[in-house]
Amino acid sequence: MPPYVSLDLFRFLLLEAHNIQDLFEHPRFAHLDESAVDLVLQAAKDWSDVELYPYFRVMDEQPAHWHAGRVRTHEQVGRVLRGAGENGWIGARDDFDLGGMQMPEMLYTAVHGIFEAANNSAQGYLGLTGGAARLITTFGSPELIETYVPKMYAGQWQGTMALTEAQAGSSLTDITTSAQPTTEGFYHLKGHKIFISGGDHGGADNFVHLTLARIEGAPPGVKGISLFVIPRMRPDANNELVFNDVQTAGDFQKMGQRGYSTTHLVFGENDDCHGWLLGQPHQGLAYMFQMMNEARIGVGHSAAAVALAAYLAANQYAHERPQGRLPGNRDPLAAPVPIIRHADVQRMLLTQQVIIEGSLSLAALCCRLSDMEHAAIDNAQKKDHWLLLEILTPIVKTYSTEQGIRAVSLGLQVLGGYGFTMDFPLQQYYRDIRIMAIYEGTTGIQSLDLLGRKVLAENGRAFQLLLAEMQKTAEKADADPELQPFAQELRQECRRLAEVTQQLVGFAQAGKVERFTADATVYMEMTGLIVIAWQWLHLALAAQQHRAEGRFSPDFYAQVLRCLRFYFRYELPHAEANARTLTQGEPVYV
Amino acid sequence: MPPYVSLDLFRFLLLEAHNIQDLFEHPRFAHLDESAVDLVLQAAKDWSDVELYPYFRVMDEQPAHWHAGRVRTHEQVGRVLRGAGENGWIGARDDFDLGGMQMPEMLYTAVHGIFEAANNSAQGYLGLTGGAARLITTFGSPELIETYVPKMYAGQWQGTMALTEAQAGSSLTDITTSAQPTTEGFYHLKGHKIFISGGDHGGADNFVHLTLARIEGAPPGVKGISLFVIPRMRPDANNELVFNDVQTAGDFQKMGQRGYSTTHLVFGENDDCHGWLLGQPHQGLAYMFQMMNEARIGVGHSAAAVALAAYLAANQYAHERPQGRLPGNRDPLAAPVPIIRHADVQRMLLTQQVIIEGSLSLAALCCRLSDMEHAAIDNAQKKDHWLLLEILTPIVKTYSTEQGIRAVSLGLQVLGGYGFTMDFPLQQYYRDIRIMAIYEGTTGIQSLDLLGRKVLAENGRAFQLLLAEMQKTAEKADADPELQPFAQELRQECRRLAEVTQQLVGFAQAGKVERFTADATVYMEMTGLIVIAWQWLHLALAAQQHRAEGRFSPDFYAQVLRCLRFYFRYELPHAEANARTLTQGEPVYV
Repeated sequence: MPPYVSLDLFRFLLLEAHNIQDLFEHPRFAHLDESAVDLVLQAAKDWSDVELYPYFRVMDEQPAHWHAGRVRTHEQVGRVLRGAGENGWIGARDDFDLGGMQMPEMLYTAVHGIFEAANNSAQGYLGLTGGAARLITTFGSPELIETYVPKMYAGQWQGTMALTEAQAGSSLTDITTSAQPTTEGFYHLKGHKIFISGGDHGGADNFVHLTLARIEGAPPGVKGISLFVIPRMRPDANNELVFNDVQTAGDFQKMGQRGYSTTHLVFGENDDCHGWLLGQPHQGLAYMFQMMNEARIGVGHSAAAVALAAYLAANQYAHERPQGRLPGNRDPLAAPVPIIRHADVQRMLLTQQVIIEGSLSLAALCCRLSDMEHAAIDNAQKKDHWLLLEILTPIVKTYSTEQGIRAVSLGLQVLGGYGFTMDFPLQQYYRDIRIMAIYEGTTGIQSLDLLGRKVLAENGRAFQLLLAEMQKTAEKADADPELQPFAQELRQECRRLAEVTQQLVGFAQAGKVERFTADATVYMEMTGLIVIAWQWLHLALAAQQHRAEGRFSPDFYAQVLRCLRFYFRYELPHAEANARTLTQGEPVYV
Repeated sequence: MPPYVSLDLFRFLLLEAHNIQDLFEHPRFAHLDESAVDLVLQAAKDWSDVELYPYFRVMDEQPAHWHAGRVRTHEQVGRVLRGAGENGWIGARDDFDLGGMQMPEMLYTAVHGIFEAANNSAQGYLGLTGGAARLITTFGSPELIETYVPKMYAGQWQGTMALTEAQAGSSLTDITTSAQPTTEGFYHLKGHKIFISGGDHGGADNFVHLTLARIEGAPPGVKGISLFVIPRMRPDANNELVFNDVQTAGDFQKMGQRGYSTTHLVFGENDDCHGWLLGQPHQGLAYMFQMMNEARIGVGHSAAAVALAAYLAANQYAHERPQGRLPGNRDPLAAPVPIIRHADVQRMLLTQQVIIEGSLSLAALCCRLSDMEHAAIDNAQKKDHWLLLEILTPIVKTYSTEQGIRAVSLGLQVLGGYGFTMDFPLQQYYRDIRIMAIYEGTTGIQSLDLLGRKVLAENGRAFQLLLAEMQKTAEKADADPELQPFAQELRQECRRLAEVTQQLVGFAQAGKVERFTADATVYMEMTGLIVIAWQWLHLALAAQQHRAEGRFSPDFYAQVLRCLRFYFRYELPHAEANARTLTQGEPVYV
């Protein structure tokens, strides 16, 4: 089996760079220790080797497709769901008494990253089910929890998030799916939803759609949106499942993630679709954002995991494929060298590596913040963790997906013409990963969220916290002569970022709202480059600190330092170019 | 039919920006005038509307595939070849007495660009046949010309270029296909070739493979490579076609350009493959580079044409799709606006436009240089045209393909989730265009060619000519107050490029060959950004000069100026970032 994931990389990120051990001091995670982390990661890999990776390509070749009112998928989908349920992977994060393992987000996300690297279509079904179920355990009544969650965590019932409507797209304000109250505790639902991932397939006994809708008479806009649990089959009075008038009207055939079904659902065509309100009326969007925010980190992490699989395939090829000679060797009879020896191939592979590992590090940090927020007792600390997580979430989502797409493209390029053929998996990674810059809010939407909301949030406190964290890392690095120049450079970038931000916020303060966010995506690009520079300095510090312990090889640690140098020389300079765009002259639009 | 090409754009480029009229003063092109240009472009579009665009998607859905020793393709391939032959499109560039129309490269390339925008898989068969035939008319004996060219120009026989071998890849030094001389005027050929585009399909009566091979006893390396004409079926003594022992051993299934067959050919498996030497022995690579250089400009132009089709589809969608409201409008009951009103959508569309039109302009300039070189009487002038073309060729190939891939990705992003579905053509453009950064020499190879060969060529004269041409455009722009600031900026970029180049060339002079070209791809990126800035200044000058004549609408000219401003603000700043990478510190590899 070709390499598709590196456990050492995940171990380094969790154990040395982001100190998952800190969490084990908290009662919630007291059952875990370092060896448990190793065991869990190894188990996830072993299971992926058998149940996920071998089906990666065939699920692409035999895509999910609609036929006669249902969606058909490769039969492995059902085995994956049940298997993951039996192993406890789906509900792993949740409380013991809800059927979970009280696994930290940090570890849960790493586990699902291994699944994604092995087979991103198959993982989709699992991640979605886990997220949907957790929305129910967080906001649902005991009855709702009891009815749905055990089946979902067991991998028998598939969970989904049903937000998008054709006329609304990214604009959730405009959704029209309606909910009419009854006196019997449920609502009558009616409406169409599109792009529902995992919305129907042959591998689950039932489907549980976490659906945004408007209760009759609700205020217009996002303030009138509520969240409902809508099963495809509902339990009747005798607890038998009966059809709940959720029709699968069709599916979408896609360029990538072809094994992952994307459906068009119709609720209540025959006025017999029952839905159960989750939590309070009109709070749907806020609730959904719990899942959405997790999903944004999850999509960023997925993109990095897919790019990792692509990188490992390209790296293996580069070591095995002989071609050409080094510059200066003009002897046509000399033996060709493996292409890894060519400078440009090394440049392409290093670019992939700094993108992927930088993204995974940022995602690990986000998960750590989420875990710390839940674990913290001090309210002020809790809030700071939350604020920092809030501002990092759109960044990890966007950097990892946009740059992950670029990384996979470079991986394909390493293989030359072969990369474009179906004989190698690079083309599939290239097709699969492209959707990730669209899932859970496009890059444009994430960028508006970062600049238009998160930078302004709490009078700029989230942004100040981010700057302070970056400064802290730079200060630590000052003590190491090898790292000190990079600390200096990071500080300079932070200063520039603060200046650019101040200049842009000036537009908002002057009431020029459109001008303020016109270049939000360029601002996102700049911020992402600097935040990942920070992560590389952080990783290099960890490598310097832990290399003597020797958990990994000297080469492993040396490569971290090499990546740091590469990133600062080849990637980071573009942040200044973005700053120039953002501060010189006026946008040509607006 | 949705828009896939803009004739006004091609007319502007040819008639106002790159003055094709200059060529008509030369006897070779004296039969042409402005109205002929219009007629030819319109005819190409009319034919594409009927024969090419309607088959764009179905040729993807029913890909070329190998079956029982032959490759099957969509039946439209044959109709396209014959139709193009009958219309004279295939041999259009060649002399009247060779069956051509003496069409300038400038116009020929525009015509084929229209075909590419309509259906890039189908155009491949035509462009390849035209290029292969012209190699025969340039270097072949009258007998070879007579035997092959009329059939090829008529679209009855398919031409190919057969370079790549599995063990050699990009390293042509290592090809091993052998040619054994006979006393009967032909050679016995033996060997395998892979990735042969158009190497077999159901739409031609015969195939003519322009093949690189080594004559027995030839010196090793590229100095021992000769070029052969190898038909699949050879004319026997009675001029009947008999099988020439060229087997189609298989094909490659690909992510994109699925309608364009990619074959694995075996010559002489039964020792009965005859080939005819083209020109002199051991000169094969030099000859092939005539076709290869044309093909590099052609691939650059194709990428821009595919990106143009994608851009026009995205632009149409953006005008028709209502979604969301402008920032500042918080009324959820207000009507949604077409997404073209959102700043980020405009940014994405403008980015596409500056990439595509900048690329097409550079390709038009390259074609003009090629036409002028052939037309020039003065030998020094001829040489300068040639040198400038030599240095621009790897740039137009690389900028247009690398940035064209990015442009199409942005087009897909404009459509959001729909862009990822098979319901819209964006995903096909995204898959199709990816190969173009690999065809005819990967980006890495082009970059080595630019820095390692072209920059050094003739003691740096090609590079000096390029700088001088950019300076000339800047000087012209100085006279226009609206353009003067951009002229200033271009001059500054030229200075920086000269400095960076000098610093890098210093490594070559010091014998540090590996260090010299280690970052060739970053150097290519920087040069490409500056050369396209030059093209935008050139286009803006043309718009300013011609707007009063009113060949196009005031909006058309205003948009050219808008693109200039956009390019200099959003794209060009990254050239300085590249300069920093190139001059600060050492590469992490080498």
